[in-house]
Amino acid sequence: MNPSTATIASVGEFGAIDRLTRRILARRQRPPTPSETALLVDTGDDAAAWRSPPGSHLITTDTMVEGVHFTHTTLSWEDVGWKVMAVNVSDVAAMGGQPLYALVTLGLPPEFPLSALDSIYDGMLDMAEEGRFDIIGGDMVKSTTPFITVALVGAIERAPMTRNAASPGDLVAVTGPLGSSAGGLALLQDGTTTTDDADPLLQAHRRPQPHLAQGQILAHEGVTCAMDVSDGLLADLSKLCLASNAAAQVEAHRLPVIPALSRHFPDSYLEKALSGGEDYVLLFTAPPDTINRAIHSIPEAAVIGEIVDGEAGRVTVVDENGDDVTPTQSGWDHYR
Amino acid sequence: MNPSTATIASVGEFGAIDRLTRRILARRQRPPTPSETALLVDTGDDAAAWRSPPGSHLITTDTMVEGVHFTHTTLSWEDVGWKVMAVNVSDVAAMGGQPLYALVTLGLPPEFPLSALDSIYDGMLDMAEEGRFDIIGGDMVKSTTPFITVALVGAIERAPMTRNAASPGDLVAVTGPLGSSAGGLALLQDGTTTTDDADPLLQAHRRPQPHLAQGQILAHEGVTCAMDVSDGLLADLSKLCLASNAAAQVEAHRLPVIPALSRHFPDSYLEKALSGGEDYVLLFTAPPDTINRAIHSIPEAAVIGEIVDGEAGRVTVVDENGDDVTPTQSGWDHYR
Repeated sequence: MNPSTATIASVGEFGAIDRLTRRILARRQRPPTPSETALLVDTGDDAAAWRSPPGSHLITTDTMVEGVHFTHTTLSWEDVGWKVMAVNVSDVAAMGGQPLYALVTLGLPPEFPLSALDSIYDGMLDMAEEGRFDIIGGDMVKSTTPFITVALVGAIERAPMTRNAASPGDLVAVTGPLGSSAGGLALLQDGTTTTDDADPLLQAHRRPQPHLAQGQILAHEGVTCAMDVSDGLLADLSKLCLASNAAAQVEAHRLPVIPALSRHFPDSYLEKALSGGEDYVLLFTAPPDTINRAIHSIPEAAVIGEIVDGEAGRVTVVDENGDDVTPTQSGWDHYR
Repeated sequence: MNPSTATIASVGEFGAIDRLTRRILARRQRPPTPSETALLVDTGDDAAAWRSPPGSHLITTDTMVEGVHFTHTTLSWEDVGWKVMAVNVSDVAAMGGQPLYALVTLGLPPEFPLSALDSIYDGMLDMAEEGRFDIIGGDMVKSTTPFITVALVGAIERAPMTRNAASPGDLVAVTGPLGSSAGGLALLQDGTTTTDDADPLLQAHRRPQPHLAQGQILAHEGVTCAMDVSDGLLADLSKLCLASNAAAQVEAHRLPVIPALSRHFPDSYLEKALSGGEDYVLLFTAPPDTINRAIHSIPEAAVIGEIVDGEAGRVTVVDENGDDVTPTQSGWDHYR
């Protein structure tokens, strides 16, 4: 059989799983991660098992569906693998934790090429290597619509940061620039990908870097309220405010954006920073003293507004003159 | 809007998630499960968090895809919810553990009715109630092909039972009857569902009972090698033998089947017991003394054969006269 045209159907479910298991084991990290050292039962049994580290456990899950969360005009299979893992890591980062173990569910059609399957795993394993955690199993099922689901377990020794701990008087800050991923996506959709400074925008969309170290720094500095920016700043800040029964005011001119974004999108960079999704920076709130300490430890972080009294979940955007410039619609809802 | 025709699209992703969150919280068990008491961050944040119990953790994941693992002629949405949860519980049972927390990923089209969404959750929550664990979050994504993925975390204080611990001389046993689910499916596909004794077969297919208590008894009695029967006895015993680098011989006349199975399928009940999937009883091996103690504690359990020297993974079936009656093909591979 020609290796470049071999499909899942040609080796069967169990053949494909064997292939992936070998790929996972070949990439086990040296020296072993602490999570690998604690493994009691690795991939290939009914369940995986590990000795519990002290403290607490975290778990999150995220899925990417072809045609909904990605298309092949904008992401390679390796990018898809990286990204579906990265969005889960970002959730663990938002709590201040450290990822330990990932389970991967692949829903793929029989005609799916094995080479693409390998690429998905290469992307996922790259992310696992950066985050110092291990893939320890999963499931493969036949599905007409390709999808990938990751369940990621993490550990945390201190109390997890949550969305519901913001109070009026807190400052609102982010750990890095906004709108870059939306800028990269717009360039990909327009076919404008060869200009000099497109790269940081494209990378932000294809290979988002979860703010794992930043999350751990925030928790260490005493921040108790955080979440990651996945659906767009305004949508996510609104969720944080709703959970905290508070409102927020954002100062548009303080939003950090990279120079390439404002250069490529002089008319829409602000809209992208406010409502573009998939930035995977962390959004956090704390009293001014705590915020200043945290910001000091994270060079790219910036204060962007404050928590105020008001209707729970309401987010207002003002410009330099204090004028209300709140957009009417924001964030993603794939069903609407 | 007419409640019976309301769809996910009519309330959006976040409206649907809110609805399910309320449904989960309304069904929280009284008195609270130990896992609920240990929760630090419940459903609705980036990740869920819990104080780690002593010992070790387990994790498993399983998915059901419409048209591949179920159809609406054979399962109601409530059955689908029960079953996708039950197959995960069965994996935890096979290690000897106790389920703690489930994450649920729903891939559903916009036109999916909210009433069916409620039914899926009712089935899942019924299973969670029986297993004394909690659903603590998940994800909802748009998908043309409906699918449900569950990731289930469990705890275990002693060493987990695994597939790779069988040795020649061990007896092979199961914790309950085989082939009932395949019998139920055949009745559903033939439309023969109204006869007197169809019920136990139909129930075995629609509402399989994971052998959670049985798994804990086995581990307590010193059994170290077990797995659950999901793909069919022969296929699963072959996997156990492959992992243990051994072979097995099964005595066909010792396979436990319920009377309704042999009555409805006098010509094919043995084939169903050998190769029908989805029984979710536990398959285990141990030296005779240990097996006898374990069998004594589990009324439905039966010895069905022994582990022998031979080609790794090879399973032979013999009849009462010792003649080889091994079927040529067995087990499920949805891709082949």
